Amino acid sequence: METLHFEELAVGDRFETGGRTLTRAEIIAFADRYDPQPFHVDVEAVEDSVFDELVASGLHTMAIANRLVTDDFYAHTSVMGGTGIEDANFLAPVRAGDTLSVRVEVVEKRPSASKPDRGLVTVEQTVTNQEETPVMTLRITSFFRRRSASDS
Amino acid sequence: METLHFEELAVGDRFETGGRTLTRAEIIAFADRYDPQPFHVDVEAVEDSVFDELVASGLHTMAIANRLVTDDFYAHTSVMGGTGIEDANFLAPVRAGDTLSVRVEVVEKRPSASKPDRGLVTVEQTVTNQEETPVMTLRITSFFRRRSASDS
Repeated sequence: METLHFEELAVGDRFETGGRTLTRAEIIAFADRYDPQPFHVDVEAVEDSVFDELVASGLHTMAIANRLVTDDFYAHTSVMGGTGIEDANFLAPVRAGDTLSVRVEVVEKRPSASKPDRGLVTVEQTVTNQEETPVMTLRITSFFRRRSASDS
Repeated sequence: METLHFEELAVGDRFETGGRTLTRAEIIAFADRYDPQPFHVDVEAVEDSVFDELVASGLHTMAIANRLVTDDFYAHTSVMGGTGIEDANFLAPVRAGDTLSVRVEVVEKRPSASKPDRGLVTVEQTVTNQEETPVMTLRITSFFRRRSASDS
């Protein structure tokens, strides 16, 4: 597959990733290290939270989504690194056994004002579970390399 | 220490966390699992990126910051779970050997419109390295339990 550069990404372009199923052990291991709230690591403690059972850390959902998007989208592009994440909304709980996948849509692009070899592209990620319920949305902006004069 | 409930958190309140030093092995292990871009996992590949050496995934910085804030702030509060993250900006590279710490400031609070037992509090996190350089800022909104009538 040809590498998609800044020039080949257009607002409205959509991509879909494959799926990834989370286990209870993974949910607890991630939260134990990075987000050790009782409702992410302790089945008995969820009754004091807003949840009715053990749920994945929102950061874990973001991380899993990022891996899917990296494998199935970024890997085929000239991405050079991210600059920021906007409007990450945790819309529904992610539970053990859920299978997540991500829809990616290009929502904005602009050339870099100072560096002619790159441009900024914002994509919206919508993470859904196996029932097509959206569990998280976010927008992430990254630099993508432009084609050099020698490419054309 | 008394648990800080919604009522005890005021806009302008500030908290600081302890520090955490990242190793090269940790940076690579996190990225290998969740953000396998060459510039996060392969020292030789950084020259094709916007970076001049191996840097931590922005998601890794968010995760480390969240752990620090959980241990040193959330653990002393009535937090019930997060609803979203806004305006996460990756301001400077995080490299192996860097020691990160987080300043937390309460920037907004409001009662829940539908659930009288909780309120929403937005905090701004500023993550700095050992040279006091800000490497990331973000705002996160979470539910915090209110004191019940029987508490007063």
